[in-house]
Amino acid sequence: MEDRIVTLDELSQLIAKALVAHNTSDTNAHSVAAALAAAEAEGQKGHGVSRVAAYAAQAKSGKVDGHAQPQITEVGTAAVRVDAKSGFAYPALEAAIERLISLTPQTGVAVAAIAHSHHCGAMGYHVEKLAKHGMIGLMFSNSPKGIAPWGGHTGVFGTNPIAFAAPRPHHAPLVVDMSLSKVARGKIKVASQNNESIPEGWALDAEGNPTTDSQAAMSGTLLPMGDAKGAALVMMVEVLSAALTASHFGFEASSFFDAEGEPPHIGQLLLAIHPGPLSENGFGPRLETLIATILEQPGTRIPGTRRLGLRNRARQSGIKLSQSVYEKLVILGEH
Amino acid sequence: MEDRIVTLDELSQLIAKALVAHNTSDTNAHSVAAALAAAEAEGQKGHGVSRVAAYAAQAKSGKVDGHAQPQITEVGTAAVRVDAKSGFAYPALEAAIERLISLTPQTGVAVAAIAHSHHCGAMGYHVEKLAKHGMIGLMFSNSPKGIAPWGGHTGVFGTNPIAFAAPRPHHAPLVVDMSLSKVARGKIKVASQNNESIPEGWALDAEGNPTTDSQAAMSGTLLPMGDAKGAALVMMVEVLSAALTASHFGFEASSFFDAEGEPPHIGQLLLAIHPGPLSENGFGPRLETLIATILEQPGTRIPGTRRLGLRNRARQSGIKLSQSVYEKLVILGEH
Repeated sequence: MEDRIVTLDELSQLIAKALVAHNTSDTNAHSVAAALAAAEAEGQKGHGVSRVAAYAAQAKSGKVDGHAQPQITEVGTAAVRVDAKSGFAYPALEAAIERLISLTPQTGVAVAAIAHSHHCGAMGYHVEKLAKHGMIGLMFSNSPKGIAPWGGHTGVFGTNPIAFAAPRPHHAPLVVDMSLSKVARGKIKVASQNNESIPEGWALDAEGNPTTDSQAAMSGTLLPMGDAKGAALVMMVEVLSAALTASHFGFEASSFFDAEGEPPHIGQLLLAIHPGPLSENGFGPRLETLIATILEQPGTRIPGTRRLGLRNRARQSGIKLSQSVYEKLVILGEH
Repeated sequence: MEDRIVTLDELSQLIAKALVAHNTSDTNAHSVAAALAAAEAEGQKGHGVSRVAAYAAQAKSGKVDGHAQPQITEVGTAAVRVDAKSGFAYPALEAAIERLISLTPQTGVAVAAIAHSHHCGAMGYHVEKLAKHGMIGLMFSNSPKGIAPWGGHTGVFGTNPIAFAAPRPHHAPLVVDMSLSKVARGKIKVASQNNESIPEGWALDAEGNPTTDSQAAMSGTLLPMGDAKGAALVMMVEVLSAALTASHFGFEASSFFDAEGEPPHIGQLLLAIHPGPLSENGFGPRLETLIATILEQPGTRIPGTRRLGLRNRARQSGIKLSQSVYEKLVILGEH
């Protein structure tokens, strides 16, 4: 079968159509679709088109409320609580970002706690919006369990991503976006499907022992990046994203991948900081000095460079989908 | 020689006396001494008594201004810039923390950028103060260069610690405090003094190649915890603590250990978040649920447990100093 080439806008329309056909409001469908299409364009395939079928099934079953309207409560002069109302995370995050952008020039810093939330995709997408408005963005999310506490054997925490973005006057924002597991569970799944072993240090088996057996790893837990130190960061992110939003912890949250059961009700925390007066307007030039100094060394690169390259290529030449993926997407929209 | 046992208060007085004898104001000396004594009591020896001689020498040479009075500028309704005025970091951090505690109940979140700063010791000490006042604390600092950008070979970044604290109603605050190098440089120094090799993954040689030769590592760079992901976090912390405060980067900062040259002028960023309304007052119970769930698994522990145990032991039985360390401290104070 041949590949299909679609523009970012065409892909976004296709995804939105699939969601609208599955009990999702037009507004929410477009919010979700823009994020998934951007992730696909930037090579973040785990947060792109591959999610559409599960999202649609969850909207249909009611595990996600496709018609939810996020509700914002001001809980401090620089703080908002956003109730995602068991809907998709993207509309709630859009509402949060809009509010943070309006607050931060006066306050210098502002925070949004997003509760009753869902999978938030590639987090760089959200913090980059803050940076495009001149703010530094910092974001934390939890997710369904996959990582054990250090020394333990049963999953308690999600892979708990951290994202960070900073504005650059003459460039796309600097974006750092990473989950805190050493590798994505998807990599281990592929190895297990191919009956291949995995490197030591990726995962534990169900008893908490290090394993190179991908099957044993699939019924075990993921190891955090940075081992014991990383495990402490994983816990910190769980506290910031779930305890601070009074949301479900990883060990309480239902899956993002099936349409069964209650909503996952995980949480996200977003911080925006206005760099201008804090740095006496030194932030922009200082950041450029740092980036130039890093790039003086052969073999280095700035985080996000690959992603930006793929984004530009997608703008110029479109996004490639396999014929079967394309057809499945079209069929979801006709449902 | 016999060990000397001193109380926390006695140790703090000894350190303060040593600093006052070296061109430091009484107020500043007590601020510094309280932090160093607490670190010594909690087993953080790299940030305790071992620092006093270098601090005193720097105050004497003028590399640190022992009489500096930190200057606070309100730069937003929830943001302050604190100029440490080339003094010790501790008085500037005390001023910042006091301001954050007063702002955060109204604002929900507040930020302090500390500029023209110096070594800030064990960062858990600072964020724990915020947590004792019911706030979540988050802190970032940079430090003189020791870590190369990922793929490079020359130090650009410091070991760039992250600290986090959260209030617990019936317990000491939860505290996470870690530098982002895989191991402290001190460990490699000890190995090199003993002509021992080091495990792979700790350091690179001066050409950027992995090395197990501790001598080669001493003229090379430290590897970040979590490898490429950790390196991105190191960069994030450099941007938050140094670019955002318009301070010196790791590659520009003078040493914390000698009395030569200009002040290091590194930076710190402190964030305080009020968990109450953001979590609809769910934060406390949620955090206890998480901690209880972690501790259900044999082999786990909560970050900071060892430190708290040592702190309690020091309160009950005093702090042990070798006779020679004790005498050096006394002599510094007579100087």
